Amino acid sequence: MVKISSAKQLYKEYRDHMAKLADTRNALALMQWDQETYMPPKGGGFRAQQIASISELAHGLATSEKLEGLLKSLKDHAELTESERKNIELTAVDFEKQKKYRPEFVRRMSETISRSFNAWIIAKKENKFSLFEKELDELIQLKKEETRILGFAGHPYDALLDEFEKGMTVNLLDKIFSDLKPRLTEIYASITQTAQVDNSFLLKHFEKNKQWDFGMKIIRELGFDFDAGRQDLSAHPFTTSFNKNDVRITTRIKENDFNSMTWSCIHETGHALYEQGLPESEYGLPSGEYASLGIHESQSRLWENQVGRSLAFWQFHYPGLRNLFPEQLEGISLNSFYSGINMVKPSLIRTEADELTYHFHVMIRYDIEKMLISGELETTDIPACWKEQYRKYLGVTVPGDQEGCLQDVHWSHGSFGYFPTYSLGSFYAAQFFHTAQKELPTLKQDVEQGNTSGLLGWLRQRIHVHGRTYNSEELCEKASGEPLKVQYFLDYLLDKYRKIYQF
Amino acid sequence: MVKISSAKQLYKEYRDHMAKLADTRNALALMQWDQETYMPPKGGGFRAQQIASISELAHGLATSEKLEGLLKSLKDHAELTESERKNIELTAVDFEKQKKYRPEFVRRMSETISRSFNAWIIAKKENKFSLFEKELDELIQLKKEETRILGFAGHPYDALLDEFEKGMTVNLLDKIFSDLKPRLTEIYASITQTAQVDNSFLLKHFEKNKQWDFGMKIIRELGFDFDAGRQDLSAHPFTTSFNKNDVRITTRIKENDFNSMTWSCIHETGHALYEQGLPESEYGLPSGEYASLGIHESQSRLWENQVGRSLAFWQFHYPGLRNLFPEQLEGISLNSFYSGINMVKPSLIRTEADELTYHFHVMIRYDIEKMLISGELETTDIPACWKEQYRKYLGVTVPGDQEGCLQDVHWSHGSFGYFPTYSLGSFYAAQFFHTAQKELPTLKQDVEQGNTSGLLGWLRQRIHVHGRTYNSEELCEKASGEPLKVQYFLDYLLDKYRKIYQF
Repeated sequence: MVKISSAKQLYKEYRDHMAKLADTRNALALMQWDQETYMPPKGGGFRAQQIASISELAHGLATSEKLEGLLKSLKDHAELTESERKNIELTAVDFEKQKKYRPEFVRRMSETISRSFNAWIIAKKENKFSLFEKELDELIQLKKEETRILGFAGHPYDALLDEFEKGMTVNLLDKIFSDLKPRLTEIYASITQTAQVDNSFLLKHFEKNKQWDFGMKIIRELGFDFDAGRQDLSAHPFTTSFNKNDVRITTRIKENDFNSMTWSCIHETGHALYEQGLPESEYGLPSGEYASLGIHESQSRLWENQVGRSLAFWQFHYPGLRNLFPEQLEGISLNSFYSGINMVKPSLIRTEADELTYHFHVMIRYDIEKMLISGELETTDIPACWKEQYRKYLGVTVPGDQEGCLQDVHWSHGSFGYFPTYSLGSFYAAQFFHTAQKELPTLKQDVEQGNTSGLLGWLRQRIHVHGRTYNSEELCEKASGEPLKVQYFLDYLLDKYRKIYQF
Repeated sequence: MVKISSAKQLYKEYRDHMAKLADTRNALALMQWDQETYMPPKGGGFRAQQIASISELAHGLATSEKLEGLLKSLKDHAELTESERKNIELTAVDFEKQKKYRPEFVRRMSETISRSFNAWIIAKKENKFSLFEKELDELIQLKKEETRILGFAGHPYDALLDEFEKGMTVNLLDKIFSDLKPRLTEIYASITQTAQVDNSFLLKHFEKNKQWDFGMKIIRELGFDFDAGRQDLSAHPFTTSFNKNDVRITTRIKENDFNSMTWSCIHETGHALYEQGLPESEYGLPSGEYASLGIHESQSRLWENQVGRSLAFWQFHYPGLRNLFPEQLEGISLNSFYSGINMVKPSLIRTEADELTYHFHVMIRYDIEKMLISGELETTDIPACWKEQYRKYLGVTVPGDQEGCLQDVHWSHGSFGYFPTYSLGSFYAAQFFHTAQKELPTLKQDVEQGNTSGLLGWLRQRIHVHGRTYNSEELCEKASGEPLKVQYFLDYLLDKYRKIYQF
């Protein structure tokens, strides 16, 4: 009898410990959210230090002897349920990984990231990579050190990829991207042989407050629970979650560009719907966490692209939008609007790219990151390399660092290995949406009538509810019946652009 | 030589440890700020748990063996400077106190407070004390337990008073209030024998946005550094600080009451100017913290009352205010405005009370808290006792709990022993301002010209810069040359009301 209660008791202790760890990480997430939304300018210095201190405490909990003991006692324990066993197994993997980091390294990384983020803000504002170079280089050296700490079998960059997408490697990605590139180039070539669509009406003046209200309405209608989350403004849109009942998204508004806010609102809502759909009872456990960044991104992209940039979606929403902005959209038919929001055109800024050329932006970053981590590229040479790659991949001339290698926040956050998950997200999104369409025969009509609750329910049941119990590959098979196939994404693009560009 | 570097090294370790403790407490402060400003409704459950977890980590740092060892090694160390020695001495006192709390007690208190706060919100909204009674009673039982944990020589309530105002006791406060009461009653009697002033114009409609802009302007002009802080809206105005470079104040706006926002803005600015004036290099150390809540309140009250409700202040600001609200203030002279904002009239709500009757509100809470902690009053009898006291002290009839015993947030936060510091703050404020007037001969003319920087400089130099190096009594002597004398406050009131009410 003592033994029977002991497994339950031990698992409860494990759960409590994991909840405390999650509490600490969520405190960190709040500090970061505040840093990007409301923190006054001078607050950055101490905030960096505060984040470092809490990171250290979180690391202490993640690598504590208490947790180690619990994991040992519970490993393969006969009295655990399947789901409990899986949590223990996944936590043990995390534990082993976290143990590799010394507390000093965690603190150094955290402080370097904060300094680097502040340097990046100034450098971007001043349009000068040199103002960021020193901090970025320190961070890159730390990331190299991290690859050695974590270990890797193939390319050192594998160690970093694994952080965002478990099991992803340079080998796999090289293959995916080298297959993808000629196919995208081919579609792009077909597009350029037809007449370009017009999107100039999207660049008229759209009042800030009206845009905000429109965005909030769309977010609500897509199913975001405003009692369990909120939207605020920040320089760079992002989603963060402190638990499924408190999910925060941000956006930014450009008055002379309708695209800027709209797609970021729908994109971040996709992330948020995932977080709001995670199982509450599993708070702090792998079964209560998102599966991977690639899967997370599949949710944001599915809502942004497969839903938000579809004709069906705007069939419902366009009349309301035209009422809101009658002058700006005067004479623009639904079809013209739909073509305009899907215009394909190589550009400088990743977050403003269309669904096709977007992936060239990712490939460029992927190439550069690999070279930085392997040592083939020096930090100081990033701007030149960036310009060269943009000329080669996209045929555009980068006028300066602000619109070049300083455009993304990721490196300043130490997020090397993150960008490829954006492409993976698009691929997963296409495959999931393809499956949902098959299984929900009225999906298109529902969307045309402004009803996306069936789709959300499908995603909740197939993806959200599982947390991190399955890895991306397993989850993909569970949700769609087969492993990831990039072909679904290519088919989706081809179908969409053939209709719009008529080739 | 080894020994010489050792004191420096140990002190550095102590500083680093104290900074980490402060970082953790400031993370908590951010979580609480967010809870009262931006957190979505459903976020409360997990937030309570998250706050409890971080509280536990903070308690761990505050009572760690490492800190204990450092304090022992550094105690009376010959190589410390006077200021360093003082920090060690004060930290040792804190350490001994914190050591008395077991981690389970800290967590239980934190969780009970969160539940109690949420219950209070509902109870207040529903105007029903019974919805708060259970949680409040649990909290009161915990506070009683706390008095036993901390120990006390006289009244058990002394243990709680000491938390907010070191050295304050029931004995001292009973004396102060029993001296004060007849004097206030006397002044009040004089006022009631003259004609009441008019303040009806303050209850006209004042547009929300215009009020906000006016408040922001005043705050800025009083010297609040918006690069090192911000103002937001919350149900109950408060000030919190994450470090001197990030100080947050909140306010609320009532469109049908000019008083509501204005005085809270100036009041919280007073608190914020103190926090923004603490020495940055002493972050996390006693020398970098505020002296006591009484002293903190002296800063808010000095700015709110001695400055913000003075004729000199409005001599400068009234023309601008009249331009902003020409209809509302039509025909209201500066003198009528000044009289109106200083009207004395017994009322139900403490935070809306005038400078005289305010202290009766404090005395009522003080009496009730003493009785609750000693066990002379049961939690369930609070509403009846409240009504009886309001009738007795202020001659007003309490229509319901919302405007009665549920009006203040303090009890739901577990802050028993806090209210008396409000009265102490008024007394210190009057004494400090009296001294400043003597030492800054042009102070009145400066204020008349909208220049309060001389006064702020004086407070920075006399009070802010010292942190918690001196206790309230010592600081009062340092700043004003003598111990606290309530007479300064009474003289100030008498002088002000004699002119306004002409008796």
